[in-house]
Amino acid sequence: MNAIDPPATAQARALAARYGTEPKPGQLPWNDVIASLMGHRSVRGYQTTPPPPGTLEILIAAAQSAATSSNLQTWSVMEVTDPEKRKVLAEVANGQKHIIECPIFLVFIADLSRNERLGKAEGATLEVLPYLDAFLVASIDAAMAAQNAVIAAESLGLSTVYIGALRNNVTRVAELLELPSGAGPVFGLCIGYAKPESAGEVKPRLPQEVVLHHDRYSTAGETEARATYDKRLEAFSRRHEMAAYTWTQRVINRMAKLNALTGRDRMKDAFKALGFPLR
Amino acid sequence: MNAIDPPATAQARALAARYGTEPKPGQLPWNDVIASLMGHRSVRGYQTTPPPPGTLEILIAAAQSAATSSNLQTWSVMEVTDPEKRKVLAEVANGQKHIIECPIFLVFIADLSRNERLGKAEGATLEVLPYLDAFLVASIDAAMAAQNAVIAAESLGLSTVYIGALRNNVTRVAELLELPSGAGPVFGLCIGYAKPESAGEVKPRLPQEVVLHHDRYSTAGETEARATYDKRLEAFSRRHEMAAYTWTQRVINRMAKLNALTGRDRMKDAFKALGFPLR
Repeated sequence: MNAIDPPATAQARALAARYGTEPKPGQLPWNDVIASLMGHRSVRGYQTTPPPPGTLEILIAAAQSAATSSNLQTWSVMEVTDPEKRKVLAEVANGQKHIIECPIFLVFIADLSRNERLGKAEGATLEVLPYLDAFLVASIDAAMAAQNAVIAAESLGLSTVYIGALRNNVTRVAELLELPSGAGPVFGLCIGYAKPESAGEVKPRLPQEVVLHHDRYSTAGETEARATYDKRLEAFSRRHEMAAYTWTQRVINRMAKLNALTGRDRMKDAFKALGFPLR
Repeated sequence: MNAIDPPATAQARALAARYGTEPKPGQLPWNDVIASLMGHRSVRGYQTTPPPPGTLEILIAAAQSAATSSNLQTWSVMEVTDPEKRKVLAEVANGQKHIIECPIFLVFIADLSRNERLGKAEGATLEVLPYLDAFLVASIDAAMAAQNAVIAAESLGLSTVYIGALRNNVTRVAELLELPSGAGPVFGLCIGYAKPESAGEVKPRLPQEVVLHHDRYSTAGETEARATYDKRLEAFSRRHEMAAYTWTQRVINRMAKLNALTGRDRMKDAFKALGFPLR
């Protein structure tokens, strides 16, 4: 996997799809893993065909292989197979039907409860647990683990989509999955084989120079880059018969009005009630 | 990358290294990508040899290819090359010298400021920005992006280690990198070729059945699994001439006393001052 002499046309295609432009002249390092990472698309339509036996186990082994802060392993993952529970989760997530249809549905959990049980068993109070940092570490570690599961799934020809909208009502999700205090759902993940019509196209992202800074934060060129990206994303939206949103319109639609949070404006109190004081 | 007929011995070795046990009978799906994910080790000693030109750019292209909530792209990344700035970052992180030595050092940033600038330019107030969910989305998206960069780096023969200890003093890091309000550092990442003596060994994790739940949270078997894992991790620690910590001891050392947070108990107020009201 160390080849630095890339198939230039495959790389050029991948960079053009992701950034919507011709890549810079000159070859960048390239291999099958990077090609797979760059080819990611979120998929919202799944075949009912289940993946082969052992798939879930190897995906979770990959997830557990991600780095975890101080090896504290403050995350858990819930496989949800019960169709009634899937229905409730889809309802929490504004009716996303792929939650019901996909063969594997996972909920990633920020989980301080296991460490707390360990402390209790050993007669130790874990003073760190009530702090915002513990919640953030658990959420970040869950995200890194989940991303490993996604990469592993895609390497097996499976598709995925994250479900952040489970946070619309973390209280209901926690009750449904019988989570103990100190364990809270942070996002869901659908896994399965894409329906051919749902496989989609790589979505362009902001030009790299807007996201990558060097030694100090810079907004130089940002306005122009946004205008360029707006055109690209509008063209992408038209090709997919979505409302012809520019990025600017999309950001405003999702962030200007509080009702776009569909309940997540109450999330902080809900997490507190789930046993995360967020001090 | 779709082979379901694995080289059983390579898989058996990988599973044994990660879980410290013989894998269950029967072959799981397997390929080079999964082998690479399962072979991850955090590395804290780097050669000075820089990676080939274009490495940073392709790693960031991989990072931007990760899923991002509603395509909001609320993260940025800072390459830090200035040796004086590296020194300050190492100091913030309790003197971790690999921050100074590694050829590529990145700081991942939860970044709502770009979306806020967009709103201002368009005359829209983004009501969502002050909420905890916006900060959480930005941090999770930064983590998923970073994990893609890690996978891409490892596929090129590079090693990595995350630096959560940058959160010891997010105020100082934000000043140093001239971050605008609404942009906050969430963790760092060292990238480079491992010194041979630092390449290390795969660290065992908790048995999978402790982390993976089915339809409802269960603690059945957890105590026994922890005892087994304690023995495994203690043996690992002895092999590496570390203090012979069990997982139980390690968790208590890192979580029982507030001073183990080395400043992160003040992180919430610091993030608020950086422009994240965390409502």
